[in-house]
Amino acid sequence: MQRNFKLTLAYDGTEFCGWQVQPQRATVQGALADAIERVTGERVLPQGSGRTDAGVHALAQVASFVLDSPIPPENLLIALNHTLPVSIRVTRVDEAEEEFHARHSAKMKTYEYRILRASICSPFVARYVYHHPYPLDETSMRDAAGLVLGEHDFTSFAAVDPERGKQDDEKDNQRTIFSSEWRREGDLLVYRASGDGFLHHMVRNLVGTFLLVGKGSLTAEAVSEIFAARSRSEAGPTAPASGLFLVGVEY
Amino acid sequence: MQRNFKLTLAYDGTEFCGWQVQPQRATVQGALADAIERVTGERVLPQGSGRTDAGVHALAQVASFVLDSPIPPENLLIALNHTLPVSIRVTRVDEAEEEFHARHSAKMKTYEYRILRASICSPFVARYVYHHPYPLDETSMRDAAGLVLGEHDFTSFAAVDPERGKQDDEKDNQRTIFSSEWRREGDLLVYRASGDGFLHHMVRNLVGTFLLVGKGSLTAEAVSEIFAARSRSEAGPTAPASGLFLVGVEY
Repeated sequence: MQRNFKLTLAYDGTEFCGWQVQPQRATVQGALADAIERVTGERVLPQGSGRTDAGVHALAQVASFVLDSPIPPENLLIALNHTLPVSIRVTRVDEAEEEFHARHSAKMKTYEYRILRASICSPFVARYVYHHPYPLDETSMRDAAGLVLGEHDFTSFAAVDPERGKQDDEKDNQRTIFSSEWRREGDLLVYRASGDGFLHHMVRNLVGTFLLVGKGSLTAEAVSEIFAARSRSEAGPTAPASGLFLVGVEY
Repeated sequence: MQRNFKLTLAYDGTEFCGWQVQPQRATVQGALADAIERVTGERVLPQGSGRTDAGVHALAQVASFVLDSPIPPENLLIALNHTLPVSIRVTRVDEAEEEFHARHSAKMKTYEYRILRASICSPFVARYVYHHPYPLDETSMRDAAGLVLGEHDFTSFAAVDPERGKQDDEKDNQRTIFSSEWRREGDLLVYRASGDGFLHHMVRNLVGTFLLVGKGSLTAEAVSEIFAARSRSEAGPTAPASGLFLVGVEY
């Protein structure tokens, strides 16, 4: 009997070329497919809630796949964690409805971007933050983050998608953002955004733009003009991958 | 004018073949010597308070070296941190007395060994703990740790020194341990020891022995017999490097 599985995963993305399987490259999806095959003998391609880029981390990525194997979910969790590299952990395994699909069924995703403001970056957190010890106007950055709330065309914040190969007017770049805010946790300045979906590089491009606002190169209000321009060249640069975490996916 | 410098360093030892410089290998001492040369033009060999092994971390290793360069200490700190890999950070630079030597002047060193007891090890801490989710009698481990206090011949807990090339009766393996205890920090079980010196692999061999006590393979009291035997084969195995941190050095 075929069963549909829903896996929740945490990973340190530093040494992976992103989620999506690529020939001759270490990827999270590839490592997971290999581990499932070693455990069950079945070759499947686990579907993620979305791709994360090279160097991007996940606290709770979700993947789904169908197996013939009669392995109980709790045994699958233990066996996969014995097989996977320590940089990927399965934190939960559930049996899911037949219709469940990690990407198509997703209703909301949450990302966090962590900027370390301390003058010296501990070697134990360097892989998990963007270290930026220079002055930033955090109040303006908060104002700018608020302007992202609601439904917008995010073309200005979307990279050309390497898979779909173009960034053009025919693509639907409309997304709805439910929350978008900066908070302080000691020396960490953390941006957290939840939305019904995120375009390629979107969170990192938003953060890169908010950083321009924080440095005074852009006003917070300019974010509204950047949306209207619908042009990637109007927004800020892509912030480094190390600071980004996929925090969770809601279904 | 020659000045003697005292550097305090933190490092993630995962990707280094230990402190001590070796041809064709990434070492902390080698990376530091290279960075000093790039910054000042002077080739020196910084002396550490002691060698740490491959994979062992430091929160506050101390190194000393003499420079002709007139660079102010605060600039040396900034320039070295610009030059070093992010896995090594200089946290402090002081000018020291002429007689100061990071190894010879050391009065006390403190190490910590971190064991993660959670059933699943987060990928973000896997490099910095030894993951051991199986049952342990922590009370017996605390008792055993107490027996290490004071002055002992630690031959049974000393690896054959790869540099000195032998472990023999002529070597002085007498050391004084000022504190030796286990504590709990949530899911972490942490061993902390301070002493006037530690032999090669000594903390990891003590922890490996305490783990045998925790598993019930040895009684706590057996630790006294292991000291008396003065034989490495009597003690437990060497615990993995990833859990060990050099926490600090007192002068």
